[in-house]
Amino acid sequence: VTEDTIVKKLRRRAPLIGDDCAVIPSPHNVDLLFTTDFSIEGVHFTRKSTAEEIGYRAVARSISDIAAMGGKPLYCLVSIALAPWTRPRWIDGLYRGIHKMLRKAKASLAGGDISHADQLVCDVMVCGFVASGKALLRSGARRGDILYVSGPLGGWRHRPVVVPQLAAGRKLIGKATACMDISDGLALDLHRLCNASKVAAKLDSIPLLKSATIEQALHDGEDYELLYTAPPRVRVPGIRIGTIVKGTPGAITFRDGPVSPRGYDHMRATTTISPQ
Amino acid sequence: VTEDTIVKKLRRRAPLIGDDCAVIPSPHNVDLLFTTDFSIEGVHFTRKSTAEEIGYRAVARSISDIAAMGGKPLYCLVSIALAPWTRPRWIDGLYRGIHKMLRKAKASLAGGDISHADQLVCDVMVCGFVASGKALLRSGARRGDILYVSGPLGGWRHRPVVVPQLAAGRKLIGKATACMDISDGLALDLHRLCNASKVAAKLDSIPLLKSATIEQALHDGEDYELLYTAPPRVRVPGIRIGTIVKGTPGAITFRDGPVSPRGYDHMRATTTISPQ
Repeated sequence: VTEDTIVKKLRRRAPLIGDDCAVIPSPHNVDLLFTTDFSIEGVHFTRKSTAEEIGYRAVARSISDIAAMGGKPLYCLVSIALAPWTRPRWIDGLYRGIHKMLRKAKASLAGGDISHADQLVCDVMVCGFVASGKALLRSGARRGDILYVSGPLGGWRHRPVVVPQLAAGRKLIGKATACMDISDGLALDLHRLCNASKVAAKLDSIPLLKSATIEQALHDGEDYELLYTAPPRVRVPGIRIGTIVKGTPGAITFRDGPVSPRGYDHMRATTTISPQ
Repeated sequence: VTEDTIVKKLRRRAPLIGDDCAVIPSPHNVDLLFTTDFSIEGVHFTRKSTAEEIGYRAVARSISDIAAMGGKPLYCLVSIALAPWTRPRWIDGLYRGIHKMLRKAKASLAGGDISHADQLVCDVMVCGFVASGKALLRSGARRGDILYVSGPLGGWRHRPVVVPQLAAGRKLIGKATACMDISDGLALDLHRLCNASKVAAKLDSIPLLKSATIEQALHDGEDYELLYTAPPRVRVPGIRIGTIVKGTPGAITFRDGPVSPRGYDHMRATTTISPQ
């Protein structure tokens, strides 16, 4: 079972699922955006990180999903299952990190749940909004569109601080044909965008963080830059990395060789998903 | 560290926290309600329960928080960290239970996150609504008010199916002075209601589920009946169990003896919290 298989199964029952956030029409010309992301010890972080880093990143992951839809975050629910090893001072650090990211994103903590587990588990829900019908989706990329990223890539080894691209996302409204954030690596996330849009992609060049490799940019996760497409005639900010082309939906090439949509899959740690 | 200490600390920073749901003013004369609840293997359930029961109950816990505010549920995000022992058929059962409760509550699944952990962790966020300013809070109980529950109590050992009291909650709007759901046992939850309202309570009689004891009704959790107060002149449905009285805030008596606010505390499994 891969993460994508489970999401596909869920989507059959709930037509709202499939993008970085659920989009809920609401009065006053806004759509509400809902997203939730786990941060689990041993899966998303290790105890080598500081409590503040863990809290900051747990919130940043969800805020990045709001950025990917071109939205603004409003409220946040933070659920925490504390592990036996957590001490009061450590928990203080965790909340410092949580509040630091919330302040940066201008979002408010509205509540949450507290419990305990064998390993530390955070689940961060964010509610945001975007103008009605303007949310950036994964499904609008068209053949001939140019493919962009909002910044250089390299994966978690080379990116000590996550910066959700809220301003970048909002600038893409009405311009980008598809958008998502890169949380599980460029290869797997681009594969998802292409699948949602029923197109293929041709990568030409990949901007790298200092000392990062192409391999890491393609297959490591946690970059949280935006990945988006726009027609050639539309000027958008960002770094051009390739083109949307005709081909098997979900298929990706880089310098004319096939790229495996391998990345961080939460059901298998690392896995390969064959295009279609 | 007890659960209540952590919540108190959080509340200092986030003035919205303190009731069963966060209440967020919204256009069109409604307040949005947000709540999230963990269901963790070994904490909230064991593998003795069926997958369907676990899924059903995980959603029911959050829906019950909406009921406690007099609200109607709308959307739901379900995050699941799968344990190594979960098999595809078991996961199907879990989702069957989740969807069964969602259908009963007329709520839609809008999304979620999927990951893995050493033990099964579900976190269910529900967004609901209530007419502006009408949400039932914990903090409005006044001396002389009558204390009610929506049904007989007895704790999880005697209650195989959780039924969130959505209809009961909505009937209390404009009538009850304070309301919450009983998730951690009558004693601890009444203690919380009294603390929030800065009053004491005198219990006279406690309606029991078949073969349940007073001890279980007071200190076991998971009843999910509503606990509420109303002035003597206001007619409300439910079962009368006592009175709000003058006294140390949070103090409870039953048949003139003191009741310890002991119940399910997620920081200590079972713990005693001294009134105040």
